[in-house]
Amino acid sequence: MTRKEKQWCAVNILSHSRHDWMNKLQLIKGNLALRKYDRVSAIIDEIVIEAQNESNLCNLKMPDLAALFMTCNWESHRFSLEYEVVGDIINLEHYDNQMTSLCTAFFDLLDQSAEQNHDNHLSILVEPDIEKDEIRFIFDFNGIITNTERLSLWLDKQKERQDKVFTTYELTTYELNVMVTLHHVKGV
Amino acid sequence: MTRKEKQWCAVNILSHSRHDWMNKLQLIKGNLALRKYDRVSAIIDEIVIEAQNESNLCNLKMPDLAALFMTCNWESHRFSLEYEVVGDIINLEHYDNQMTSLCTAFFDLLDQSAEQNHDNHLSILVEPDIEKDEIRFIFDFNGIITNTERLSLWLDKQKERQDKVFTTYELTTYELNVMVTLHHVKGV
Repeated sequence: MTRKEKQWCAVNILSHSRHDWMNKLQLIKGNLALRKYDRVSAIIDEIVIEAQNESNLCNLKMPDLAALFMTCNWESHRFSLEYEVVGDIINLEHYDNQMTSLCTAFFDLLDQSAEQNHDNHLSILVEPDIEKDEIRFIFDFNGIITNTERLSLWLDKQKERQDKVFTTYELTTYELNVMVTLHHVKGV
Repeated sequence: MTRKEKQWCAVNILSHSRHDWMNKLQLIKGNLALRKYDRVSAIIDEIVIEAQNESNLCNLKMPDLAALFMTCNWESHRFSLEYEVVGDIINLEHYDNQMTSLCTAFFDLLDQSAEQNHDNHLSILVEPDIEKDEIRFIFDFNGIITNTERLSLWLDKQKERQDKVFTTYELTTYELNVMVTLHHVKGV
């Protein structure tokens, strides 16, 4: 269990989740009242895709990482998070601790390095790839980074890791792209 | 934290919750496809009431009891649970342990005493009442009880409690009504 997840009890999780769902329902209700039935269908389709993504994330068997991603927008961060899981579903339970620590540290750093009152956005693409026997985590930050130096120092350190986690990145004041690749993920 | 709640981690809670919400969405989608727009509105209204109930339950500040109720239908019980919270919202945090223990024991007993392959149903009405300075929990079981003796033994024991929890009940093979009243709940 991660440091952050410990703060979440069932009631809090369900309250936040209910709040999110009620917002979606409100959107459906509003469009229904305006008789925009096509829009209602489109909203429902979007919700289904989002739920499918959550479900894919959970199927990777990294419960701590999944919890970190799914509860991130309920915490006060300097960025909003969006994620997508595409490709094959692989059991990655052996990487849960490693990736959760890495992402928690990365989120903390973004909170320290991003402009506070700006609409910063982080999107994460998770791509398990059975054929190449690897999984790629592609982090795409858009916003304003006030402290690029601290971030690049940390990212350079990640490049030197000896534990199968390979990191490449591009960093400017307005954008940060990080790719973390784990090799040999099959049959761990 | 209750014995049962310990088994629930964020991912499990969110998976079950997502599953429930997707079922509701499916119902909306189906009726939308049939152009039954009034039915869609009615379904949404029902969902809003249900969410309001959950929210009222959480506002009583009994997180363990709320978690027990909200996750009950995700566990394998011999009954399905429905609950309603009406009346005033009182801070009942001092009764959380007591009521959670009582309800957990009661649910366990129902699991041991109810007919396994029958559609048993338990509805709980929670009525905080500031004027009378009490809160009433009205449990209404409908189904088949195969072991009424064990239940009545346990319920009789509850009647003799010395801790402000007052229990009355009526029990037949097909129905069980229990009222648990806590007095002097204000300003505890």
